[in-house]
Order: sequence, then structure tokens, then C-alpha cells
Amino acid sequence: MSAQETSLAPDVLDDSVVGQAMYELAEELAPICRSITGNGVRKTLNVIGERIPLKITEVPSGTQVLDWTVPDEWNIRDAYLLNDRGEKIIDFKRCPLHVLGYSMPMQGRVTLDELKPHLFTDPSHPGWVPFRYSYYTKNWGLCLSHSAFEQLEDGEYQVFIDSSLEKGSLTYGECFLPGTTDEEVLISVHTCHPWMCNDNLSGIAVATALAERLSFQRNRLSYRFIFIPTTIGSITWLSRNQARLHKVKHGLVLTCVGDNGQFHYKRTRRGNSAIDDAMIYALKQTGEPHALLDFSPFGFDERQYSSPGFNLAVGCLMRTPNGKYPEYHTSADNLDLIRPEKLAGSLALCERAFEVLEGNVRYMNTSPNGEPQLGKRGIYRTIGGSIPEESLVTMLWVLNFSDGHNSLLDISERSSISFREIRQAADLLVRHGLLAICD
Amino acid sequence: MSAQETSLAPDVLDDSVVGQAMYELAEELAPICRSITGNGVRKTLNVIGERIPLKITEVPSGTQVLDWTVPDEWNIRDAYLLNDRGEKIIDFKRCPLHVLGYSMPMQGRVTLDELKPHLFTDPSHPGWVPFRYSYYTKNWGLCLSHSAFEQLEDGEYQVFIDSSLEKGSLTYGECFLPGTTDEEVLISVHTCHPWMCNDNLSGIAVATALAERLSFQRNRLSYRFIFIPTTIGSITWLSRNQARLHKVKHGLVLTCVGDNGQFHYKRTRRGNSAIDDAMIYALKQTGEPHALLDFSPFGFDERQYSSPGFNLAVGCLMRTPNGKYPEYHTSADNLDLIRPEKLAGSLALCERAFEVLEGNVRYMNTSPNGEPQLGKRGIYRTIGGSIPEESLVTMLWVLNFSDGHNSLLDISERSSISFREIRQAADLLVRHGLLAICD
Amino acid sequence: MSAQETSLAPDVLDDSVVGQAMYELAEELAPICRSITGNGVRKTLNVIGERIPLKITEVPSGTQVLDWTVPDEWNIRDAYLLNDRGEKIIDFKRCPLHVLGYSMPMQGRVTLDELKPHLFTDPSHPGWVPFRYSYYTKNWGLCLSHSAFEQLEDGEYQVFIDSSLEKGSLTYGECFLPGTTDEEVLISVHTCHPWMCNDNLSGIAVATALAERLSFQRNRLSYRFIFIPTTIGSITWLSRNQARLHKVKHGLVLTCVGDNGQFHYKRTRRGNSAIDDAMIYALKQTGEPHALLDFSPFGFDERQYSSPGFNLAVGCLMRTPNGKYPEYHTSADNLDLIRPEKLAGSLALCERAFEVLEGNVRYMNTSPNGEPQLGKRGIYRTIGGSIPEESLVTMLWVLNFSDGHNSLLDISERSSISFREIRQAADLLVRHGLLAICD
Repeated sequence: MSAQETSLAPDVLDDSVVGQAMYELAEELAPICRSITGNGVRKTLNVIGERIPLKITEVPSGTQVLDWTVPDEWNIRDAYLLNDRGEKIIDFKRCPLHVLGYSMPMQGRVTLDELKPHLFTDPSHPGWVPFRYSYYTKNWGLCLSHSAFEQLEDGEYQVFIDSSLEKGSLTYGECFLPGTTDEEVLISVHTCHPWMCNDNLSGIAVATALAERLSFQRNRLSYRFIFIPTTIGSITWLSRNQARLHKVKHGLVLTCVGDNGQFHYKRTRRGNSAIDDAMIYALKQTGEPHALLDFSPFGFDERQYSSPGFNLAVGCLMRTPNGKYPEYHTSADNLDLIRPEKLAGSLALCERAFEVLEGNVRYMNTSPNGEPQLGKRGIYRTIGGSIPEESLVTMLWVLNFSDGHNSLLDISERSSISFREIRQAADLLVRHGLLAICD
Repeated sequence: MSAQETSLAPDVLDDSVVGQAMYELAEELAPICRSITGNGVRKTLNVIGERIPLKITEVPSGTQVLDWTVPDEWNIRDAYLLNDRGEKIIDFKRCPLHVLGYSMPMQGRVTLDELKPHLFTDPSHPGWVPFRYSYYTKNWGLCLSHSAFEQLEDGEYQVFIDSSLEKGSLTYGECFLPGTTDEEVLISVHTCHPWMCNDNLSGIAVATALAERLSFQRNRLSYRFIFIPTTIGSITWLSRNQARLHKVKHGLVLTCVGDNGQFHYKRTRRGNSAIDDAMIYALKQTGEPHALLDFSPFGFDERQYSSPGFNLAVGCLMRTPNGKYPEYHTSADNLDLIRPEKLAGSLALCERAFEVLEGNVRYMNTSPNGEPQLGKRGIYRTIGGSIPEESLVTMLWVLNFSDGHNSLLDISERSSISFREIRQAADLLVRHGLLAICD
Repeated sequence: MSAQETSLAPDVLDDSVVGQAMYELAEELAPICRSITGNGVRKTLNVIGERIPLKITEVPSGTQVLDWTVPDEWNIRDAYLLNDRGEKIIDFKRCPLHVLGYSMPMQGRVTLDELKPHLFTDPSHPGWVPFRYSYYTKNWGLCLSHSAFEQLEDGEYQVFIDSSLEKGSLTYGECFLPGTTDEEVLISVHTCHPWMCNDNLSGIAVATALAERLSFQRNRLSYRFIFIPTTIGSITWLSRNQARLHKVKHGLVLTCVGDNGQFHYKRTRRGNSAIDDAMIYALKQTGEPHALLDFSPFGFDERQYSSPGFNLAVGCLMRTPNGKYPEYHTSADNLDLIRPEKLAGSLALCERAFEVLEGNVRYMNTSPNGEPQLGKRGIYRTIGGSIPEESLVTMLWVLNFSDGHNSLLDISERSSISFREIRQAADLLVRHGLLAICD
């Protein structure tokens, strides 16, 4: 184990240490040019694999996955555009966004008119290079800022795109942490965006830290972290894991969790899943403003997990949602956009929600007729008549509503007592044999 | 077909043309003296029958219908009151409301004191003649304005009521437009009020126009328009159609739809029927202020359709509700109270609601595991990375929620995308084999 | 029967007479020193038994009751504290709260330091003697005001507590008023607090008056009033009545119903029981501000009736709730804290709620297809056309919603017509054979 891993043990509570470690992972990954397939993904997974145990899967091009086919593998080495004075107008080496994702190789002289249909800009943000791709339609292209585009002069240009699109494979990584039950929590992050720091690396950093920290403790639930290209990756993973999807009881897509915005939690398609309850509880506990979004069938990979045939209980945590911050899918979604303390806050939120998932079970009161006499068990005050203490009140809540229908989180919400206190009271009552777990 | 009918074809979208045609029907019907039975009803149905195919049913007096008995047929030829100077104080020829509905014949001299118990006025609107009737208790009577009543001088009066109450029949009309399924929409309007233009003729005019326009198009649903006397008419119709009421999936009573007020929609007894959803959707789409009323067991014939033994899903559309406008059930509910453009607005609202009923089905996504690859079917953008277009988003909504549980209107409401756009996306997906209809 | 009883007959509607009678009962009971067992309880029940038929049950010490054991019987004759000048610093004869409930006997000289652990005060209300007890842990003690405690000087004190704790029994009383059905209403009040007037005697006074008044009339429901020590009393009663708890359909704990505060009704554990509906309806009818509290598993004996194994539908009526008024469980909860007119208001509220419970049944319309023809039964107006009278509208509501699903209270709420009017309309319709009761 490296020094970095140790620093993320669950007892490291200093947010600035934890946040800094996640930020450094993002810094390490930022220069790598990723796409939905190719060596950039492999390098990214290798870096993650230095921190957590990662099983790498390679799925050959052409494999049928649900309604889709795994595409050929794309690799890019260099790309630039020279004007007729030989000046480099566009240079992939300076920013990987300059090449259209999945661009075919191209080398040759073209006029400006011939070139224009292959140049992609974002006129609404003229200073930034947009992220554009053409995964399933063969094309070649370059991306540049709209202001640079507008300065292009008539004349001939030299295009050079040194890419390859060939049989190969789609690569994804999986970190599995077995718990004492095989109820699974699926955490999904995408690894296919070049450059993008909030919409890509922030999710990777928080998921990696979560996996590290969970690996230090004994968990009731099993946790599966998957690092996949978006859409085709989740479709590939779903296709290969259909027989065991019934074990996935809770799921979370993590993305855009490093910027300065308030939390946005997008509910599962079912709308009231246990992961929704746990995330909403944890969000309330932050005491910070936040927003709940209803499920919609676009966004990130939750749209695949939540397709009607699977309908998995997968929510999505973001700070500023996709498309709602100007830097989204542009060169401005860079390391300046994400902050260590924001990554740390996102991690803490997930940990609190998972604490609820871990501890949120239903019990049966084993002495359900009348209150059990707590005094003879030494867990009741001896002098009566005054207002009862909070810990006693908490026990009475847990005893009364542990009827097989209410989970501890239900009791927490009904009583307005924090989940942690409810959980502690339940532990005490379990020790005295007054509660039995429901299965 | 007359010129008038052609002018109401569904592609005639000019509200002023459509509204004018409906208003002219009301003008044609206004002078006819209607009651719950008799020749006035037959004349009224004849006029309607010139526009739409109408099957006339005659039910003999004395027929047992549910808990009721079809009453004798009433006809009125003339009625007046002369003072002792021979002046006509009250004249049925000027307004049919002047005779008590179902008044027995009467001819003779009476003192003012003898007369008074047979005179009916509305002191709260002293200038107007009220609409009063005594269908099931034999009586004779005349109605007049309260101010005229107060000017009656002591002395003798000559009463003349040339009516007849004899074995005959109750008459109603029915226009049936078969659809491709035998799920039926019942539209019910009453035809029993003399004079009343908003509370009677407006409903007849809009229902007749609706039937005309629906007859031009191929419909999934079957439509049954019934033109009946209120209470005894709906009871008679229900009594004779009990064996096929299970086909009536949606229903609507139309009345008071020509005045200047905002729309009021009274929900079905169930409160959340498909017709409620469709009407509420259509009302929202008007962008105009409107009111929703919960079901109550009084009002119009919905009280019969919604009796607990039948409990049909029948709502009621009004502009200003019964009893909530001063002219209600008085001589002031005349042709000045209704406006062509208001009739046209009511028609348009019903058409929009029926468009929803027609198209609001449930589908199953035939490729429910993960998103289907729309790109290979040519219905996905080729360059990715930017915010997706609305039409793509609409398809994703329809695909994700077409799980057999959600209707297209459910998806429209969940997504805040208009029903028409949802319906169009569904049509495209059906053509690509990605949706199959649920039965 | 005494004069007092007669004055509480249901036709005595003068609140001041009724309130005064209840207040006098509280005055009579106030001087008696009660505890969870002993002669004080017996004397209290004797006084109640002069007004209503009361069956007394004695349960021997040591009897196992659910998870508890009936404790030894405690009796107290005298208790005081003398300082070294022989002055009586504390005197049980002046207020029974001065002795710790269930204090062991004690006689002897002690230093102030030895004494202090046995003295109980309430520093937050330094002028009042607190109510403290040690029922299940053997101890001896005295209670005094905190200001008196602070004036204690160093030196020796003479303690005298003439109590006994011996095998005996726990005593409770039960008044059963059979109705025409064996559906039971359980009214529970505690009889174990010395001195306390609001948190004890107010509940006894209102429950006794309720029983008196209900005994004058023929009831559909059976009423069982139990006068019990809190916690161990309800546990004992539950333990001995487990086989017939299924008959208890509604229940109410009455306490703190004599003070000046607004009503607080604490819902049953189920939250929407018939007693909840009835109490909430009655509270609304008072037109006074009031508060509804959700069930919580502490408070009074409702916590035993509502333990998850029994889950009886027992609510709790209070004015100012336990712990929410400063005098609670102190010597200041005395006869000055309760008012005759507040007791009378509490009684009236319960009577109105019980009127709903008595009359709130479900009917089936026996003529459910269409409206029945009320005219031929003589219960419809003869001249039609004007706005219908309220009594007619009420009948239509009852007929339409008497479908086996809606109770009369449901119909009252849906129609915003008072329960009494709905009940009257139902009675009329029953007489005409148009409603049949559901069982």
C-alpha cells in the first residue's frame, strides 16, 4: 500500500487531507486522452488500480451487447491543422479535445470550404474548445474555439490526424468489496471523457476514495464499483451481468461532484428506493441547500440501468448537473473547476448515505405486548416523575415501531431523531434481546 | 349534406365560421317550446337530425324505467291571462316560460286570491320570468315576472291554458359513430328546457358540431351522442341500455357552454377517470383560467350516470355552472347570453380532450433492456457531445416509460412535454418497431 | 341516585351546572394520597363508585403481567423531617407530594450530607414541590421545593417516614355500559397521582361524567371506562383482557383536560382510526383553535395500548399536554389550575365525538341504479326549477355515496355538510327503505 492509500483510511477525518488526495488523483489522470475504447482508458484504469483492487475486462470489438455492438477500438497519437504558412492552428498535444472523438485518420491538403464541415465549435462559448465525438458514424474532424474558427482565412490547410480505428476491445474496470450479505451496491462512474475534470475525473476520484475507505471496514452490503465508458460501457456491463442483476439492490452514478455548486440528487426511476431515502437523509444532514431531481431518461448511465427492462434502483449524485454549468463539455471543464474540499464534501455525503444503507434494517420487538420493563434490565432511570431523557425516548421509539414494517430510517424520520442515535438505541436493545432482525 | 355541415369539417379551423354555425343552430331551436315529452322535443330532434344521423326512440307513457315511470305526454298550444278589462297580462306566445311546465289545462274566471297560488315568480330577479315545472304532481299554473305580479290588481281574471296531458311517449335521439374499437364515449345533452339558450341550446349546438366533425374522421373510440330530457331521459336511456353500459368508458355532459364565463369542469364520481385526465389536460392547454369542481350528486344528468349502481365515468363541462349566473332558469337565459366564439372555444376544448382520449394508449418498449440503439435506425444525431434536441429527448421519455404501466398522457405529464409531441414520438417509434401497443 | 348524578343527565345542557359537578368531584378527590397501589386508590374508586357502577379488581402482588410483575402494595400514613431545633421542615400532612412515591419506611437521625441524596427538588421551579417516585427500585426519600432545600442548614435531621411496602394488591375500577353491539369503546384514565388535579383528577372527573351521561341513553356501542394506575395498571388490565381486546374498536385516554389551554388531540398509532376521525371532526366543530399531535410512544397509557403487539386504536385527549405546562408534576398542579367550564368543554367535545362514533355507519343505497324517485315517496319538492333546498341536497349526497364504501362521516366531509344533518337525512332515507345498513 502506498502512502496515499493509508491517508484515506476511514479514521482520517481531516477533509483537507482527504480532499487533497482525491484532487491529486484527478491531476494525475487529467493529461491522459480517454475515449470509449483505447489505450487512454487502459492507462486511466492502471492509475486507479494502484489505489484499489481492480479487475480489468476487455470485450472484443463486434461483440453483441443488448441492442448494441461493441465498436472498433480507437487510438489517437497526434492531430493538428497547419495553415498555408505552416503555422499550427490546432494542436492535439495542447488539448485532446481538439480532435473529434473517434475521428478517422486523415492526412491531406484541403481548402477552407472543404475543411469547414469537419470543424466543430461551440458558438455560445466562443473562447472554449467543445468536446464532440462521432462514435458510430465514420467521420473525421477537429474541434476548436469559435473565435479561432472565425479567424480562419481563405486558403489551403494541411490536416493531420494520426488515429486508428481497428478491431480491438472495449476496456472496463471493476472493484468488488464483498460484504456479509450478497445484497449489492453498484457505484458507476464513466472513464471515457478526455480532459473533462468535473464531468469525469471528479466521479472517478470520489469513487476510488469511497472504495478505499470501505475496504477498511467490515460491511453488511457488498459494494461493486465499475469504471466504464458511458452508454456503451454500461450497456456492455449490463449485457454481461444480466443473470446477477437481482443482487443489485442500490446504485449510484457519481459525476460532476467536484465543482463549487450545491448538491443535486437525481432520484431513481422508482422514485422512492432505499438509496433515495438514504441520499435524501444524508443531504438533509449536511444542513446545506441542495436540490432533488426526479428521474428523467437522459443524463448519465442511470438511463441504461433504469431502462424499463432492468429498472435498477440507481440514483445519480451531482453538484451542478450536466448541461447546467457553462464549462460542461468544453475545454473549460478543467482542473480549475474542481476543488479538493468539494470532492471531500461529496465523499462525506456518500459515506453518510452508505452508513444508512448499512444500518437501515427492520427489527421485530421481541416483547411487543405492552412496553418491556426496561428497569429490570438496568436501562431505565430509577427515579420517575421528571421529563424522560432523550436516550430513553429513543429506545421507546425503536421498540414501538419495530413491528416488522418500519426500518430504522423510517423510525428516524418519524421521530425526528438522527439515524445514528436510532441505530445506537437499536444496538443496545439487540444486546438485551429486545429486538430481533427481520429477514 | 347541406352547406352548413360541410362548413364544420375538421379542417375548418376558423373559429368564427364554426362558432357562427353553432349559434345559428341555437337561433333555429330557440322558439320551439320544449318539455320532457311532447312535440317540442320532436321538432328539436328533427332540426338536429338535419345535421347528423339521429335515431329517434319513442318510449310509451307508463313504461317502468328503473325506479321511475315514463309520465304522460304533455303538449301545449296556447296560454294567457286576461284581466277584467280583457287585457292580456300574460301571453305564452311571447315566451313559452309563461306556462308552468306540465300545467294541466285550465279555462275559467278566478279571483286574484284564487289565482295567486297558481302564479310563480322569482322575487330575487323581479324583471325576469322564471322557469318552473310540476312534472309529477298535477297542478296548473302560469309564470310571470315578479314586478308584473306586484302590479296585479284585485278583481277577476280569465285564465286560459290549452294544454293536454295524455298517454303518449317520451322521445329521445341518439347519434352513434362507430370506431375501430367498441370502447364508447357517451356525450349527453338535455333537450327539455323551453327557451333556455345557455342551459340547453349551447350544449345541443356544441354536441351536434362535435358529432359532425368526428364523423369526418376515422376514430379508435366509438362515440354515442344522446339528446334526452333531463333526469327522466337519462333514467330511461340507462334503463334500456343496462346490458351494454360496460362499453361506456368515458362520458361527458355538455351544458352552459355558450356564455362568457371561464370553463368549469366537474370531475367524474371516481375523480380520476381517463376523461378527467383528458379534460384537465385540454383545459391546461387553453392557457386560460378555469376551475375544476369535484363531483357532487346534483347538477345535470351526470347524477344519474354516476348513481352508485352504475358509477359511469361521466364528467360535466360548463362555462358558468348552473345556479351561478343570475339568468339561470329565467327568461334572461336567451340568445344574448351565448356568443359564437364561446361556443367555438367549447368545441375546440372538447376536440382537444377527445384527441387525447383517442391517442392515449399504453405501449410496451420492445427493446426494454438498455436504450435501443437509435443511431443504427437513423433516428439519432450523428455528432455527439452537445445538449440533445427536444425530439430525441421526447423519444427517450416514451421509450423509458412505455413499460405497460404508463399511458402516453402519463408520460406527457411526467415529462412536461405536450401530448401531441409525445404522440408523434410514439408514432415514429411504432414505425421502427420499438413500441407495441398494450391491450 | 344522588342529586349530583341526576344533574348530569344528557338533557342537562347548562355547561356551568355540568362543569361545577365535575369540579366538585375533583375537590372531593384532591386530598386523598394516591399511588400505583394502596388505600388511596381504593378510596378514590369508592368516591367514583358513588356516581357510576364500578367493578373493583384486586390483583395480588407478585402476579406476572406481560413483561412485568405486580409490585408490593405501598401505604403511607405520615412523613416529616425535623431539624435539630425540632421544627417540621417537611410535612406530608400538608402535601402528599413531600414523600417520594413508594418510599421505604425510615426513622432516624441523619446529617445533612447523609440526607441530601434522599431529597428531591425541581431547581427549574424553585417554589414548587415536585412529584417523584421510585416504584421499582427500593429507596427512601422526601421531596421539597428547591428554595426550601437551599435554606437547609448543616446539622442533624430527624427523618420520619411511616410507610409500608408489603404483599397486597393492585386495585383498579371498571365501569361497563353495554350497547346493542359488542364493539367497544375503551376510555382510560389514571388514578395513581397524588395531589395532581389537571394530570389526574380532570381525567377522572370527565370520564365519570361521560359514563353517567352515556348510561342514560341507549347506545349502539359498548363503553368501558377503566380507572387504573398508569403503566403497571394498563399493563395489568391488558394482560388480564388479552382474549377480548379484539372487541376494542376505539379508545381514548383522558388527562390534563381541565386547564385553560387549547385542546391537543394525540392521534392513535395507526393515525387514521375512526376515533381519530371522530375526534378531529368534533374538534373542528368547536370552532376553537386546537392542535393535532402525531402518535409518539411516550406520554400516558396509550403507549401500552399502542405497543406493537396490541396496536389498539387509542387516542389521547388533553388540553395542555404533559410536560408543556410549568405546573406539570409539581405541587402547583392543584385545584386552581383546573376550571369548571374547561372540564365542561372537554366533556362536550367527547360527547360530540362519541355521537359521531355512534352514528357513523356505512349504508347501501337499496335503489342504486339512477336516483330513486323521491317525489313518489313524498320527500321531494313539487315545483321544480329553482335552486334545491339543503335538505334535498343532503339526501342526494347520502344516496349517492352510500355504496358500502363511505361512512356517514366520509359523506359529511366530502359534502361539507354537518354530520348531524347527514345523520338526519340517513334516518329519513332508512325510514323510506332507501338505505340498508352494512355489517
